[in-house]
Formats: sequence, structure tokens, C-alpha cells
Amino acid sequence: MDAATLWKRYRDWLYYHEELEVYVDISRMSVEPDLIDHLTPRFEKAFQDMAKLEQGAIANPDEDRMVGHYWLRDPDLAPTPEIRQEVIDTLAKIEAFVGQVHSGQLHPPGGDRFTDILSVGIGGSALGPQFVADALAPLDAPLAIHFIDNSDPAGIDRTLGQLGDRLSTTLVFIISKSGGTPETRNGMIEVQAAFAQAGLDFSKQAVAITGVDSKLDRQAQSEGWLSRLPMADWVGGRTSELSAVGLPAAALQGIDIRAMLAGAKAMDAATRVADLKTNPAALLALAWYAAGKGQGEKDMVILPYKDSLLLFSRYLQQLVMESLGKERDLDGNIVHQGIAVYGNKGSTDQHAYVQQLRDGVPNFFATFIEVLRDRPGDSIEIERGVTCGDYLSGFLQGTRQALFDNQRDSITITVPEVSPYYVGVLIALYERAVGLYASLVNVNAYHQPGVEAGKKAAATVLSLQQKAMAVLKESNKPMSLEELALAAGAPDQVETLYRILRHLHANGRGITLVGNLGRPSSLQVSAV
Amino acid sequence: MDAATLWKRYRDWLYYHEELEVYVDISRMSVEPDLIDHLTPRFEKAFQDMAKLEQGAIANPDEDRMVGHYWLRDPDLAPTPEIRQEVIDTLAKIEAFVGQVHSGQLHPPGGDRFTDILSVGIGGSALGPQFVADALAPLDAPLAIHFIDNSDPAGIDRTLGQLGDRLSTTLVFIISKSGGTPETRNGMIEVQAAFAQAGLDFSKQAVAITGVDSKLDRQAQSEGWLSRLPMADWVGGRTSELSAVGLPAAALQGIDIRAMLAGAKAMDAATRVADLKTNPAALLALAWYAAGKGQGEKDMVILPYKDSLLLFSRYLQQLVMESLGKERDLDGNIVHQGIAVYGNKGSTDQHAYVQQLRDGVPNFFATFIEVLRDRPGDSIEIERGVTCGDYLSGFLQGTRQALFDNQRDSITITVPEVSPYYVGVLIALYERAVGLYASLVNVNAYHQPGVEAGKKAAATVLSLQQKAMAVLKESNKPMSLEELALAAGAPDQVETLYRILRHLHANGRGITLVGNLGRPSSLQVSAV
Repeated sequence: MDAATLWKRYRDWLYYHEELEVYVDISRMSVEPDLIDHLTPRFEKAFQDMAKLEQGAIANPDEDRMVGHYWLRDPDLAPTPEIRQEVIDTLAKIEAFVGQVHSGQLHPPGGDRFTDILSVGIGGSALGPQFVADALAPLDAPLAIHFIDNSDPAGIDRTLGQLGDRLSTTLVFIISKSGGTPETRNGMIEVQAAFAQAGLDFSKQAVAITGVDSKLDRQAQSEGWLSRLPMADWVGGRTSELSAVGLPAAALQGIDIRAMLAGAKAMDAATRVADLKTNPAALLALAWYAAGKGQGEKDMVILPYKDSLLLFSRYLQQLVMESLGKERDLDGNIVHQGIAVYGNKGSTDQHAYVQQLRDGVPNFFATFIEVLRDRPGDSIEIERGVTCGDYLSGFLQGTRQALFDNQRDSITITVPEVSPYYVGVLIALYERAVGLYASLVNVNAYHQPGVEAGKKAAATVLSLQQKAMAVLKESNKPMSLEELALAAGAPDQVETLYRILRHLHANGRGITLVGNLGRPSSLQVSAV
Repeated sequence: MDAATLWKRYRDWLYYHEELEVYVDISRMSVEPDLIDHLTPRFEKAFQDMAKLEQGAIANPDEDRMVGHYWLRDPDLAPTPEIRQEVIDTLAKIEAFVGQVHSGQLHPPGGDRFTDILSVGIGGSALGPQFVADALAPLDAPLAIHFIDNSDPAGIDRTLGQLGDRLSTTLVFIISKSGGTPETRNGMIEVQAAFAQAGLDFSKQAVAITGVDSKLDRQAQSEGWLSRLPMADWVGGRTSELSAVGLPAAALQGIDIRAMLAGAKAMDAATRVADLKTNPAALLALAWYAAGKGQGEKDMVILPYKDSLLLFSRYLQQLVMESLGKERDLDGNIVHQGIAVYGNKGSTDQHAYVQQLRDGVPNFFATFIEVLRDRPGDSIEIERGVTCGDYLSGFLQGTRQALFDNQRDSITITVPEVSPYYVGVLIALYERAVGLYASLVNVNAYHQPGVEAGKKAAATVLSLQQKAMAVLKESNKPMSLEELALAAGAPDQVETLYRILRHLHANGRGITLVGNLGRPSSLQVSAV
């Protein structure tokens, strides 16, 4: 393609929202005119599906749920007056709570002010708050945030160690819609033990963020926790940053949550337009479809050229992959859908894996996220007329061009700055793009059936561990792995049992293993 | 495959190093016996290539360089007495330097002790130090580390803001082999400006880590910097963690660098064995080849079940993708090789993208990294006989099984703990696996020709910016983008110019744009 044709193509495709000052450029994606014709009816259906979703249809049929994250940003869109009021009341409750914490009206038993937040949650209850904290928290945040987002004992110890004596002035969020997420429950129990160890009253510093009347909610109520904030049934974990999951922590850190909501609301309006070429989310969905032939054949590499957006790709991994990565379509056909997402930041990644992107296996398309404003103040010159930020901008353009020269496609999204408003804009843009793409490929973007399988399998492992330990305690002689598996009622689970025992053994948990650890058949196991 | 067959397969493939206490399990990868026969001669050649590399052959022919990171861990292997002495002397110099900093013999002009490290470097000069700091730095580290690894003005401001007044007691590392990496140079200039602004003498707190007699080395010498540490020509960026790039920062943070080196040395010995089934790196290379048919058809998803290994996947992205992602093989054929790498940590990622891994597009294989010891002390029980760490272990086993049940392959690597020794082990294991795999697919694992292309393209962009600004300052009337491009001698670069101007405009850099920013043809540009 010669320069003039390419320049015309750029101008033809360029999306610009004058009020939002946001650009979306898909001119460097190979989108054939035929494909647009082919997809036009599907986009019409996608826009209709989305309109119905916003009106309160059961958009998540498997779980028989409405999908309402758009109402969080514009309660007037809510399908019933009750939901509208619920959104307004929850926001008011969050802001009142945050105000009381900031003023010291709510304070820990041992101090005038809360100094830190310890946020215990996993998946959608962690990825949004982590992304937003890293992108937006000011240096002089009124409260500093820390996370427990796993069931790793050493990781929990590290986080508690970082808090140290400030545990006495730490506000603890326990975030789980059902209250039944094991990692979060485990984290809570470990934190409660740390509070007890330090002679502190957990309930006076704990906040439950959970569904109304969930198990966690009832526990918090009966134990008299400091506060409870409600998670709506119609907000999924991966779209919960702008709900009671994300907003309290953001506001406590001094981040303008009204601006986040306003940015998302403005982008929601822009992506409600039922016209492919003037809807930025539809343009993304089209580009994704074109890249991967609607079957996820290409990975989505996210390259924000801005340090503060480093965690955006991790946030998008969940939003995109958990939404789109499905075995069956809505008609029950086996489709194995999805789009793999990875990335960190530019230009840093140019010195890591961009070598492969340019020269290696062509199994991806890139998304450049450009931020126009370099920094609040002026910049010194590195060379005559050239600043550090000009380099960053030049690296982005240069890498985009170098990829294009090697037939590697890319999208470029341009925003003026990283601010609460534009974080809201970016979240809303991708939420909508994922929803539209899901319609194009006919999958339910709002459930996650595969997550259960790993949980169930883990429960089987833990149950086998308990049975095996019971057998060993009863037994008065060493057993082979096969004998133990049989006695524990799981003769088919010798490998699982071997790995359980290896783990218990390494932690001094009351078993003796005799033999060569690397030759399972040689092992004899007994209780200590 | 029934349980008994699978259990036999597990035992047949299981690699265990009794002294190292490391397991590698590739039994859940679909490796056909035919493939092993097919690859056996290639493995023989790979082992020979590796032996020659260790003996000092020019293993990086494009750059006419030896590849010597193995000598860092075992100087007795060095091909000449001079190199052997160089390794020993550099380590001694690093340890002497670290000792002087810790003791206060080397101290900042305004204080008794250095309190912080500001590490300025990108790519291999950042990813290793970041991974190691996050994995191993103790809570009470003698010095805390901070990074500038980009040319992002706001990112630099944030890092400097975090240091605040402690800039006066901060040791600054400038890390660049050639001294010519623009991002690192830009970071240095910005930091120097911050020092000047604060009335501090940069040279008294700066350390150059660079090739002997590089531009940076000469600058450091002439300006009398606090210290200079030498980077060897035969160590590449992505294998430099155990060289002068990574060791000084690690040691300053109180990490046992001799243990890191010992772990790597022990794994180097284990992976020197010229036999496929008893060489853990060869097993990895075989598994990667089997998964992607030797053409990178499957992504490598890295799932360490341990918070402290979160950054290992980012480290491996560079090591694997920059090494293997090549356009041409060693014979000059166009091959577009590589393996895409991504991942964060388990079980956290089970609540993010593992939904797609299990149910969605089958374009990957997983690598579980299991750490046997949960934490230094004892654990409380979550349920009867079950700890938080048992859950983590159960989630790993459960997810591995859930993936297998859906025909998704996985590797499992098991280490006893995350410690300096085992970080050395893991780094060495993957370095060797990448080298062997590169031999299997016949690419040069030690150069990165594609990185240059983006740099050159960026230089073109910056040059166009300077020309356009010069034209605008000369001109006395507004111009269209096309007119300006023509006058700047780049009529084919209108799009690039438009994007340059948008960036300058957003930063108040002396230009006026009149028209609709989203319709480039409407714009008239002039100097303010």
C-alpha cells in the first residue's frame, strides 16, 4: 500500500470523539470490505442485544441474571426505580463511609485515623482495585492500599509484614459477592489470626463488601463489623471496578470516583451508537474479529505507552479472556472461543518481547495505547527541541511502523491523559467492546463455568488429603502409595496422593516418607 | 488414558534431582514416541552446540560474540584464564563495593548511609533486578530499590516523587552495556536534572554499570562518579541477572548473591548432561517443541503458585521471546520462529483467565511452578487438618487436572522454596532450555535484530519532528499537514507528522492547530 493510499485509509477509519478527545485507529488492521458486509447483520443484532441488556434483559441466561454495570454510571438507565435507587443509595453510602474514614469519625480503636487499607479479594475483586491504585493513587494518598489476592501463606505473611505495627490502623476489606470464595475466606481467617495475635479486635476494623444477606454479610452483621457495603447481584466480578468493589478503595486513596463514573458514562454513551464506524467499541470488536477470524486465532498484545497503565493488560486479561473464553456458544455448539491477552507497557517491552512481535511467529495483533500529555509540568530537553516524552511518542510510532512493515497488524487508542476520568473511559470502552464481540461470536460473556471445574477438582484433592491422613493415623505400619490410595478409597488417585504427601512432607505436617522422593514406587509412608 | 497408564506415564517421565530437590514433570504433555526419535539427532547436536558455546565458541555469529553467562557461575569453565580472572575480579569488586556501601564507608555527601537504590535501565537491565527484588528482597532490606525502566516523563516523576527527600541518600545505578540505550540515557538526564534541582551532586551518588570504555564508562570516569562496574561483552542483556547487572542491586538489598550463583551453577551442571531424559532443560525444550510443533503454535502460559514469583513470567517473556522470536534461522531461511509467553500467578489467575484456558481456544500449554514449602513457620488450620497452603497446593493440582480433562497440556516444575538459591536454579533452568530449544529449531538465541528496527523508525520520527518545527518557525502563515510534510522534505509522512503534531499540541510545545483534530485534512498548523 503506497503512502497516499495508507494516509487516506487512516483518515477514512479514524474515530474521534471531540468532547471526549479520544481517538481509535484501526487503519493498520487488515479488515476486508467483504468482512464488513458479512458482519453487518451480526453487528445489528449485537447492538440490539446490548440495548436489551441495558434495558434489563436476562443477558446472562446460564445464571439467570441481568447484567447491569452500565447502570452504575447512569442510574437513570436502570430498568426499575428500585435498581435506580439501589445504585444511588450505594454510592451515597460509599461516599458517606469514605468521608467518615477521612474525617476520623470512623477510626480504629487504637488510633485517630486509619492509615492503610488491606484489601482481601481475588479475581474481579482484586484486578480492578489493583489497576486503579497503580494508575491513579496520588503520592500523598490519605490511605495506602495493600492486597491479599491469593491463598499463599508466604504472600500473606509478606503483606502483613509490610503493614507491621500499622495493622492497628489498617482498614480491612473482605470482598466476595457470595462470601464463599475459598481464597478470600482463607485470607480473612489468616488476617483474623494476625489481629488476634496482635491483640487487636478485627471486627472494629473490618468491612464486608458482599452481596446482601450472603454468608459473609451475615457473619459481618453478627460480629458487628465496622461496615458492610452491598454488591449488587447484577454486577459481575470482572465489571465491578465501578461498583462497591472498586469505588470505596479508590475514594479512600483520594481518587475522584465521580470522575471515573463520569468518564465511563461518557464512553458508554459513545459506544451506545448503533453504527459500526462511529462506535469505537464496535470498531475494536470488528478489528478483533478480523484479526482472529472470529475464532481467537491471534493473541491481543496490549501496549500502553505509559508506566501508570502497566496493570491495564492484567485487568484486560480477565475482562476479555474470562468473558470470551468459552467452550459453547449460546446455542450449545462446541466452539472453544476466546482471545488470549498479554502485555505490559511501551517502550519498555520493546526491549523484551517486541523482537518476537516484529520478526517471529505472527500469532498476534498489537494494541497501542497512546497518552498525549507527557506530565503535568514542562519537560527539559534531551536534545535540541526533543524531550523524554517525544522519545516515548517516537518509540510508539516507530514500533507501530516497524510492525506494519512486517505485516503485523495494530490498533491505536489515544487518550489525552491518565486521570480518573480516562480510566473510566478505558474501562467502559473495553467492557462494551467485549460485549459486542461476544454477540458477534454468539457466546455468553457474563458467566464463567470453567472456573468451577478447578475449584471442584481442588476440593477433591483436599478431601483425599483428609482421608489419607485419617488412614495413616489409624495405621500402625508404613504403607506404599498404592496401599494408602486403596485404603483411602481412591485407588485411581495415586499420583494425586503422591503430590499431596510431598507437600505435607515438605511442611513437616506429621508424615514420614522413606525412600527416594523421585521414585514414588520406592516410598513407604507413615504418620509421625 | 486410564489412571494406571497415566500413573505409569508420570513415573516414567518424572525427573528428580536428589541433591537439588527439583522435579520436572512433562507427563501431561502430548509427546509422541515418534517425535523423540525424530528429535534425537537434533538433541545430540544441541548438546554439542551447547558444549562448544561453553567452551567459548562464537555462539552469536551475527554479532561475532561468545556467549558466556555460564562462566559467571563457574569461572573454572571460562575458555581463557583472562576471562576466568575477569569473572572473579568483577564479583570481588561488586562485593567490595556492596560492603563499603553497607558499612557507610561509601556514603552520600549529605548522610551517613545510602538508603535507596534508583536503578535506571531497560530490558535485561531491569527485568532481572525487578524479578529478583520482588522475589527475594527481605522486608528489612538495607536499601530499598526503585526503577526507571522507560522514557515516560510521568513515570519518572512518580519514581522521583516516591523517593522525595531521600534522593539525597539514594544510590543511582545507570545500567547500559553500550551506554547508548536512549531510554536509559533519557532517564539519566532526567535524574541528573532532579539532582541539580535539589542542589545535589549527581556524580557523588552515581554508579555506571556498563561495558569497559563505553561512552557511559568514559562519562562516569571523566565526571568522577562514585563507582563503575564492568559489564562483560560476552553477557547478553537477557542473561545478565547473575552478572554486574543484577548482583550489585541484589546484594545491596541483603540478598545472598553467592547462593544465587550456587543455585545456577548446580542447575547448569544438571542441564549439562547430554541425555534427553535425564536433563531437565532438555525435557522442557522437548515439551515446548511437542506443544508447538517446533513452530511456536502454542503459547507458553507460566503459572507459579507463589506470590513472590509473580514477575517470573515477565522475566521469561524476554528470555524466551527475545531469544527465540526470529525471522530467519541460522542458515538464512525465513522461519518466523518464537513462542509467546504470558502469565502471572496461581491460584489468582484461576479467577482471571483460566476460564479461557480450560474452556476456550486451545492455543497454549501451561507451566505450573510449584513451591513445596508454604512459609517459614507453622500454619493455622482453615478446616480440620487443612491449611491455607494446602488449598494453594490443591488449587494447583485441581487446575492441572481440570486442564488435562479438557485436553490442555501442562508441565509442572517443583522446587522446595523461593530462596536465592532456587531463583538461581530457575533462571539457569530456563536459560539452558531456551538455548537447547534454539538449537532444535536452528535459530541464533543470542541476538535481537528486530529491536533495532523500532529504534531506527523512532529516530526517523524524531528527526521529522525537528525538521517540521524548524519549518514552522520559519513560516509566517499557517500550513496544511500536506504542505508542512512537503516543506519538511517528507511528503510521504503526513500521518506521522499529524501524530507528532497532536502530541506537541497536547503538551503546549509551541504550535497552534486550528480545525477539527479528528479530521486531519481540516487542520492548519503554525508556530505559536
